[in-house]
Amino acid sequence: MDSVKEQDSAPAAPVLDLSDLQAAYERTKKFIARTPTVPAAGLAALSGRDVWLKAELLQATGSFKLRGVLNALLQLAEPQRLAGVVSMSAGNHASALAYGARLAGTRATIVMPQYANPAKVGATVSYGGEVVQTDRPLAEVMTEVQDEHKLTLVHPFDDPRIIAGAGGVGLEFVEDAPKLDVIIVPVGGGGLISGVAAAVRVLSPQTRVIGVEPAWAAGMSAALSAGQPVHLEKAQSVADGLAAPFAGHHTLACVQSWVDSIVLVEEQELVGAVGVLARDAKLAAEAAGAAGLAALLSGKIDIEPGASVGLIISGGNVDPALLASAVTTAY
Amino acid sequence: MDSVKEQDSAPAAPVLDLSDLQAAYERTKKFIARTPTVPAAGLAALSGRDVWLKAELLQATGSFKLRGVLNALLQLAEPQRLAGVVSMSAGNHASALAYGARLAGTRATIVMPQYANPAKVGATVSYGGEVVQTDRPLAEVMTEVQDEHKLTLVHPFDDPRIIAGAGGVGLEFVEDAPKLDVIIVPVGGGGLISGVAAAVRVLSPQTRVIGVEPAWAAGMSAALSAGQPVHLEKAQSVADGLAAPFAGHHTLACVQSWVDSIVLVEEQELVGAVGVLARDAKLAAEAAGAAGLAALLSGKIDIEPGASVGLIISGGNVDPALLASAVTTAY
Repeated sequence: MDSVKEQDSAPAAPVLDLSDLQAAYERTKKFIARTPTVPAAGLAALSGRDVWLKAELLQATGSFKLRGVLNALLQLAEPQRLAGVVSMSAGNHASALAYGARLAGTRATIVMPQYANPAKVGATVSYGGEVVQTDRPLAEVMTEVQDEHKLTLVHPFDDPRIIAGAGGVGLEFVEDAPKLDVIIVPVGGGGLISGVAAAVRVLSPQTRVIGVEPAWAAGMSAALSAGQPVHLEKAQSVADGLAAPFAGHHTLACVQSWVDSIVLVEEQELVGAVGVLARDAKLAAEAAGAAGLAALLSGKIDIEPGASVGLIISGGNVDPALLASAVTTAY
Repeated sequence: MDSVKEQDSAPAAPVLDLSDLQAAYERTKKFIARTPTVPAAGLAALSGRDVWLKAELLQATGSFKLRGVLNALLQLAEPQRLAGVVSMSAGNHASALAYGARLAGTRATIVMPQYANPAKVGATVSYGGEVVQTDRPLAEVMTEVQDEHKLTLVHPFDDPRIIAGAGGVGLEFVEDAPKLDVIIVPVGGGGLISGVAAAVRVLSPQTRVIGVEPAWAAGMSAALSAGQPVHLEKAQSVADGLAAPFAGHHTLACVQSWVDSIVLVEEQELVGAVGVLARDAKLAAEAAGAAGLAALLSGKIDIEPGASVGLIISGGNVDPALLASAVTTAY
């Protein structure tokens, strides 16, 4: 895993706290589904742990992304709102931004990779988003579009407003589940785990927060080792939602401060978890959403038998071929 | 659809009411998950209706069946409990009975067809049930087993205790969803719709209750036409959970009294609905569980645009090959 160090260094400490999460929650709640927390008896039998699922894949647009996006969009100044917003994404952030832009009365342009999951591109367009697909570096193309049309960037993860919004998942989970010993959270750029950890550290301090990354797209692990975000030469995974090529400065600071550890899972563990989740918990998740289960079943996290484990099933916009293959393998 | 009339005639009126449902609910609730009611934005966009899902596939053992089974098992007299119970089922009733028997401190023997979904047979065994598979008529074999071991029958649907337990789905749904104009309920032997209608008729009288049967296994429609239960020569469907070869006397009486109408869906509509449910609502349902969506999307029910529609997603124990084929077709 070759990496190139970036020039900025990570901030010393997170710039957000619980009050930011609570403000984001109040600001956005009329548009956000309170997703169910459900006990998973089948997964409990399989893992020997008491397993609770935060079914965030049932969120509007099929992932947690809308929470952060709306928190950012609803704080735009009037000229920004009128000019529109821009971002880059392989999928879930794109759909959420397009959908959220409508709710917030603005317009979104999203730069997406040429290889993006066509279903995610289609969803983004169907929500009214303007999509620019490219095989050039996304950030480069995005900056051109942004400058040309004077658009406001809504970053997919490295923004305190995005993190604070995502933290709503954590606020709800600690309220709805019984006391959890561990919460396992999928990590792409780190927005979700940063927000969740911000909530859990204060509201349920004895709960460990563990992140999970694909071994082939382990930008947060690389950043933790380097002490600052590093750019991965290559970051590709069947969990396309976790294939961010770098962690953020803000998200790294949150993870350094509040997260217990990050584990890595292999591609086949991710696919297997998609199948098991469909079979034993009846949820059609994408690989990113199944990453917590992959980590639990891998045995890579030291968890007492019988302990209570929370998994955040973060998204459900799965490629049909992957789901089909996963379910036929798992059964 | 050839049919043979049975000799008994249907009772004039249902023998249960809301108080029986409430008693069943109190009796069983410590073992029963309160399954989530979720808005389905993707299905709303697709159907032009405001769609709410009762995600009963997240119930323990993967279907609504445990509710009725436990209500019956927890009322066994001591000698009955000690001797054990018996039933016949193609799947979900079998797993629920095996699982419930453990909770109630008794033992279950279940006669299952030779062609039963192997996953459902396996689940029943894994919950501690004793399975007898046969290619002879199930009722015949069951009676032999019952007589030999002096077991108590827990009927899969035609029993007021089973119906009252299933009604808990209706109690929760009317409490958790906003006012629904229509609730669409899958119909096999009729236990679920009878219980749900018993709740809805009293608690939300302006809500229409519509049943849906596979055209190839339409025992309730046949019974309604004949004015009494009739035995279908053949009842097979991709929705194995709905392929009961006859409606019950009790369930017919409930449907006659409380249900607005029954619509029929084709096999390909059922498979299509499984795929759409996974894609747009992220739920891995079996075909029986997707039947309400199949009926909604078929256009066979007259529902105003924008009306609010409740679908009971009754089970998730889907054959993996079916799920795989459904998702790749739907996307």
